[in-house]
Amino acid sequence: MEAVLGIDVGGTSIKAGLFTPEGELLEERKVPTPALVDDAAYAVVTDGLKRILDAHDATPEDVIACGLDIPGPVADDGTVGFLPNIKLDPEGLVGAISSVFPRAQIAFVNDANAAALGEMWAGVAHGTSSYVLIALGTGVGAGVVANGRLVAGAFGAGGEIGHITVNPNETLTCGCGRKGCLEQYASAKGIVRLYLAECEARGVTPVKIEHATDTLSVFRALAAGDDCAKLAVDQMCEYLAQAMAQVSCVVDPAMYLIGGGVAGAFATFAPELRRRFAAHALPTCRDVRIEAASLGNQAAMYGCAYEALRLRDAAGK
Amino acid sequence: MEAVLGIDVGGTSIKAGLFTPEGELLEERKVPTPALVDDAAYAVVTDGLKRILDAHDATPEDVIACGLDIPGPVADDGTVGFLPNIKLDPEGLVGAISSVFPRAQIAFVNDANAAALGEMWAGVAHGTSSYVLIALGTGVGAGVVANGRLVAGAFGAGGEIGHITVNPNETLTCGCGRKGCLEQYASAKGIVRLYLAECEARGVTPVKIEHATDTLSVFRALAAGDDCAKLAVDQMCEYLAQAMAQVSCVVDPAMYLIGGGVAGAFATFAPELRRRFAAHALPTCRDVRIEAASLGNQAAMYGCAYEALRLRDAAGK
Repeated sequence: MEAVLGIDVGGTSIKAGLFTPEGELLEERKVPTPALVDDAAYAVVTDGLKRILDAHDATPEDVIACGLDIPGPVADDGTVGFLPNIKLDPEGLVGAISSVFPRAQIAFVNDANAAALGEMWAGVAHGTSSYVLIALGTGVGAGVVANGRLVAGAFGAGGEIGHITVNPNETLTCGCGRKGCLEQYASAKGIVRLYLAECEARGVTPVKIEHATDTLSVFRALAAGDDCAKLAVDQMCEYLAQAMAQVSCVVDPAMYLIGGGVAGAFATFAPELRRRFAAHALPTCRDVRIEAASLGNQAAMYGCAYEALRLRDAAGK
Repeated sequence: MEAVLGIDVGGTSIKAGLFTPEGELLEERKVPTPALVDDAAYAVVTDGLKRILDAHDATPEDVIACGLDIPGPVADDGTVGFLPNIKLDPEGLVGAISSVFPRAQIAFVNDANAAALGEMWAGVAHGTSSYVLIALGTGVGAGVVANGRLVAGAFGAGGEIGHITVNPNETLTCGCGRKGCLEQYASAKGIVRLYLAECEARGVTPVKIEHATDTLSVFRALAAGDDCAKLAVDQMCEYLAQAMAQVSCVVDPAMYLIGGGVAGAFATFAPELRRRFAAHALPTCRDVRIEAASLGNQAAMYGCAYEALRLRDAAGK
């Protein structure tokens, strides 16, 4: 058999999927992320992968492609940039994987970019050559696909729309060191912050918030008629719509897909987001589709596998 | 011989170039633009093209590709959108050209996109697969190239960076009906307007401005030490740098090329533009190259020819 591996390397856990070359997910396993900087840690990963293969009567030699995504910049040429949220030595990990899976084409992808590619392979973007997947999670990332190809960028910043400036008057500093970035309003953390700020401004006691990214409680409050929650979500939609209008002036996609943890509430905020996008966008782009992504937190795993397969095809293997 | 035609259809004049398939320009001719809506007008164009061919001992059957650019939106699939600045029936014109040049692959391209492609074929972007050409002229347009391919957009709005919102507080309305678009500050008209507004605010008599797009006089005043001209050009650079920082968060190009009429003064404003871009951009993209385009007003003509050749290759002809 020919097998493909897709490995979603997150800050907290690693999700690995075994796929057929046609995109069928045969099995998925999840382990906590070790510090991926020495042979012992690489062996934890490769041993886990070998066990998945074994369970499907496949051998390491059957693996023709293996893609990994990482929470950080990966440029057009595959160069990995600075990784603030994870301990990982890309060269060491590639070396370990290459020696265990000698036939495999290896690919590195940024995590939001991987999610975009996953939706192309097996999700709602199948057959679409022009779209932007926006991942609203702890941060805000995106994967831009144009002419059927991912736009990773010369410096790995393709799709870094979380750092489009939407509020030049912001006084708080974003993680990137600049001020007024989309991520400060449309990430899970941003939505919770907007809600608590609105409550404070009005002298209203907020609902119980479990942690800094607990948007579930904010959306629950919204459903229960909480005005502050409504205002916070409206602000989030406003800034997101403004940023999307800018994105449309650059790559003019046929479709936006909203993914990431916050997309669980997509049905709640979609009408407001669509209305505000139409108000901000160039008239010619107003009819763009704005939909929910379809593969949830498996999207990136699919996308890694797909990108490795694509590189293999491009190399004529 | 095999011949390629590139036809730059502007609001005022049509420039037609005869090229070899390798990109050598053999001859260029220019005629005033007629209303391209009936057979008589199409014949003016095709007869002119036949005369160019004749002068090079080539026949209409030698033409393997013929590209046209137009001042308006052309989508990924070649669909032509609304054309506010020119009377043109795209289907009629294509029909006329096809019947005169039976072997030719026809292509339609937006004008700024054509200029970007021209720079790839025969200009400073040769061999570069990721760049954005920004045309600062009567308006502000751009051609976005990612993964070696033009991003025309699903609705033909790819590269419409002139309509990125850079000043949410603007009270004047842009040609697109929105407010605070880059084009209101970085077009030739915008620069002249900023200069006159600055003079008025300070109660200073401006230098003589010949017409609404006379940036030449503004840049001459700047060279002569005019403070208002300096402030106007600094503002132009500021808004352009802000917009470019947003563009880098979407497609993260390796290079920006500045073209269009205003680029004649590139050496004057480049240091300010580079400084302000570095101040606004995500740290990872700060080292992007910002250069002058190299083909001047021939760029679009080159690009049309190139796009028609590319479509021909893609069709396997």
